[in-house]
Amino acid sequence: MREPIQFPLDLPELDVDLGGARVRRTVHPSGLRVLTEHMPGARSASIGFWVGVGSRDEQAEQHDAPGSLGSTHFLEHLLFKGTPSRDAYGIAISFDRIGAESNALTAKEYTCYHAKVRDADLPQAVTVLTDMVASSVLDSGEFENEREVILEELAMAADDLADVAGERFFEAVLGDHPLGRPIGGNPETIRAARRDDVDRHYRRRYDPSTLVVTAAGAVDHDRLVEQVLAELALSREERWRTDVGATPVRRAQGGADAPATPDAPGEEGSPEGVARVAVTERPSEQVNLMIGTEGLRSSDPRRFAFGIMNSVLGGGMSSRLFQEIREKRGLAYTAYSFGASYSDTGIFGMYAGSAPQKAGEVVQLARAELQRIAAEGVTEEEYERALGQIAGSSALSLEDSDTRMGRLGRTELGSGELFDLDASLDRFRAVSGDEVREIAALIAARPTTVVAVGEVSRSGLEASE
Amino acid sequence: MREPIQFPLDLPELDVDLGGARVRRTVHPSGLRVLTEHMPGARSASIGFWVGVGSRDEQAEQHDAPGSLGSTHFLEHLLFKGTPSRDAYGIAISFDRIGAESNALTAKEYTCYHAKVRDADLPQAVTVLTDMVASSVLDSGEFENEREVILEELAMAADDLADVAGERFFEAVLGDHPLGRPIGGNPETIRAARRDDVDRHYRRRYDPSTLVVTAAGAVDHDRLVEQVLAELALSREERWRTDVGATPVRRAQGGADAPATPDAPGEEGSPEGVARVAVTERPSEQVNLMIGTEGLRSSDPRRFAFGIMNSVLGGGMSSRLFQEIREKRGLAYTAYSFGASYSDTGIFGMYAGSAPQKAGEVVQLARAELQRIAAEGVTEEEYERALGQIAGSSALSLEDSDTRMGRLGRTELGSGELFDLDASLDRFRAVSGDEVREIAALIAARPTTVVAVGEVSRSGLEASE
Repeated sequence: MREPIQFPLDLPELDVDLGGARVRRTVHPSGLRVLTEHMPGARSASIGFWVGVGSRDEQAEQHDAPGSLGSTHFLEHLLFKGTPSRDAYGIAISFDRIGAESNALTAKEYTCYHAKVRDADLPQAVTVLTDMVASSVLDSGEFENEREVILEELAMAADDLADVAGERFFEAVLGDHPLGRPIGGNPETIRAARRDDVDRHYRRRYDPSTLVVTAAGAVDHDRLVEQVLAELALSREERWRTDVGATPVRRAQGGADAPATPDAPGEEGSPEGVARVAVTERPSEQVNLMIGTEGLRSSDPRRFAFGIMNSVLGGGMSSRLFQEIREKRGLAYTAYSFGASYSDTGIFGMYAGSAPQKAGEVVQLARAELQRIAAEGVTEEEYERALGQIAGSSALSLEDSDTRMGRLGRTELGSGELFDLDASLDRFRAVSGDEVREIAALIAARPTTVVAVGEVSRSGLEASE
Repeated sequence: MREPIQFPLDLPELDVDLGGARVRRTVHPSGLRVLTEHMPGARSASIGFWVGVGSRDEQAEQHDAPGSLGSTHFLEHLLFKGTPSRDAYGIAISFDRIGAESNALTAKEYTCYHAKVRDADLPQAVTVLTDMVASSVLDSGEFENEREVILEELAMAADDLADVAGERFFEAVLGDHPLGRPIGGNPETIRAARRDDVDRHYRRRYDPSTLVVTAAGAVDHDRLVEQVLAELALSREERWRTDVGATPVRRAQGGADAPATPDAPGEEGSPEGVARVAVTERPSEQVNLMIGTEGLRSSDPRRFAFGIMNSVLGGGMSSRLFQEIREKRGLAYTAYSFGASYSDTGIFGMYAGSAPQKAGEVVQLARAELQRIAAEGVTEEEYERALGQIAGSSALSLEDSDTRMGRLGRTELGSGELFDLDASLDRFRAVSGDEVREIAALIAARPTTVVAVGEVSRSGLEASE
């Protein structure tokens, strides 16, 4: 079995072949890391500036700041609002005039500023992204304006019932765990946010020692390293210290045997029943349902078995959830299952949107399918179909430089293990049918949370809160 | 200036170089057309089966059938439900086991069944797509089940207020024109739909003479033509006639001087005022606003000037709408403009989602920005920025075989003119500043429709209906 490529921290340089693409990493004495994946023949490149700080990190260090929830996302917005060299319009037009696909993303464990550009435009994107990340001015006037924009963003999300269900699901499954909180905060914390708190967050967490730059596609590693270092030297200032040692921030990666998230709720609940039903009553045509429980942390060795189980259960048109809920009974337009993994825990869920009066039936069907795999496993045909689906969809997604740029960033901020496609498929192929059944059994035995958003009053689902 | 490649109907074979990619077309005596674009170095391919029938074609020929609205979309669903050789699960697993990205799309003027697959999997995708398109059984039991699925799809769309605004906008701007109708019908017409009507629709409109197969990426033209013809011969049956002559269906393409859509409403309205405000009252955090009027038909030679105007007005973070509505005033998270063009008319619109009490201000700002371009034109910097944005984003999108497959299909079903990227950019570069101002003036002089969906009662917007 091919092994993953390890990214050991004590190696400043790494240069490996990853299934035909050349992957290189350079670690600067400041701790800054640059990783690239050259894709032969590519005429464009994707580049991301990653900082290993996400919404989960907010309250731990800022418990004195009432507006701290959502401050990571607030900061992400503010980085587009100006530097000493560029105002907000200057940043915007820098990307627009080259037709870049640019955006930023605040996640629970990281923040990423990224762009996809034609090969010749890569230096321009690097210049602007470096400036944004290293030299944001966090102007007070812009802060107040952006507060309104973020409140509108939260209002937009509040009108999207599937979005609401997703946030409620994290809260209900993970309870008080920092991963359970919504990424963007809420209107109260955003109204309470103070510029100086966000500025402190920026100064404390954005530093060469926490910065990871990844690029994939038409990219020359040496030239990129040279440019990033040059741009940072130009923008060297008090808040962008370059005098620190190499102290990359990595989260503790729990093993399979590490204890489960200590503060996740309901671990002691009855495995047979639904531990809780969390209802958000809203006028709607459909009830948005999420059914699930705690899942696997990123490094869990059972994640390959989980991937096969998840594909059979709820990945694609031939999956059990799609067939049972939509194709045989017409109860929903959409039905699927999913997993999300983080350094110390994760979630597993099944989603469907259905007419309120059919919501109870959908919940029963979804739970029954999970339990059926837990009891009987999957068929040989399903197992082969899952392997084929994972192989095909992975190959297609890796044609896009975005996917590869993102893989490099998450690898470097996460486990430090990079699997090329073949090594990854080897792991899936090594999973036994018993292991698929066992992971389903493990998940099915955990207490189930049901989140329902919409006109639940007509559904027959009962709320426990 | 480079000219577009013409696809004349009387040429059974076409073989041209399109900016480095080889484009070929073969017309079979039955009328069946196969078009491919070979992308050197590609390891995957996108394939689409197109039929030139969309929601606009429904009522004209089926005025006796009360459930005809939405029947094109209903048919699209049913084609996944089984053939003599494959049931619905068999179709689903055919795609899933190779990890295909497969789906179908019903539009106003066409229907497309498509898949993106690894190169080696292309024959498998062709086999299944041909079977679906040529040999669907439209089973009565599956029909009833799918009716429920489509009702859930409509319910899902009804809960998405931006979706609702989009449908209301087409209705309000285009009135009784067939393009004004929602693509999926509505719950009443779906409940009234009869299997035999949909079957008649299928038999009448799905025929080699209306079928266009397009593929891009790692595709061999001759082998694809050979396979499609072989698969169709195997599935030759009464409803899939191969004895017709070459009678490709093309819609009349109006020129710039052709009369405007005769039944579009309000052409005589006051150009200064808002002709109508169409309100859909819904509980919400935001009001979803669409402001606009009739736009350009696909073949309008002013479409290049429109493209530049639209980019400056509402394309990207540096656009006027984004800057004025979001960046300067924090009134919305999203603000952009758009155009949609069809064979005989089109629409132009501006979108924003804002707090109800700010909706009136957003409408005023959006209209003022359009009028400002109509009066003063755009700056040199804005013009250059728009050209750069169009060049960069077009180049990035054409890296994807999906985009090229789609371009081939829409070209063949539409004007028959295929522009490569350079020829297209030549057209944009030839646009004068005066032409940009003139197209804004033309659009600004048309009566404005405002669609508002959400808690409009708190907005100060007044409804005229």
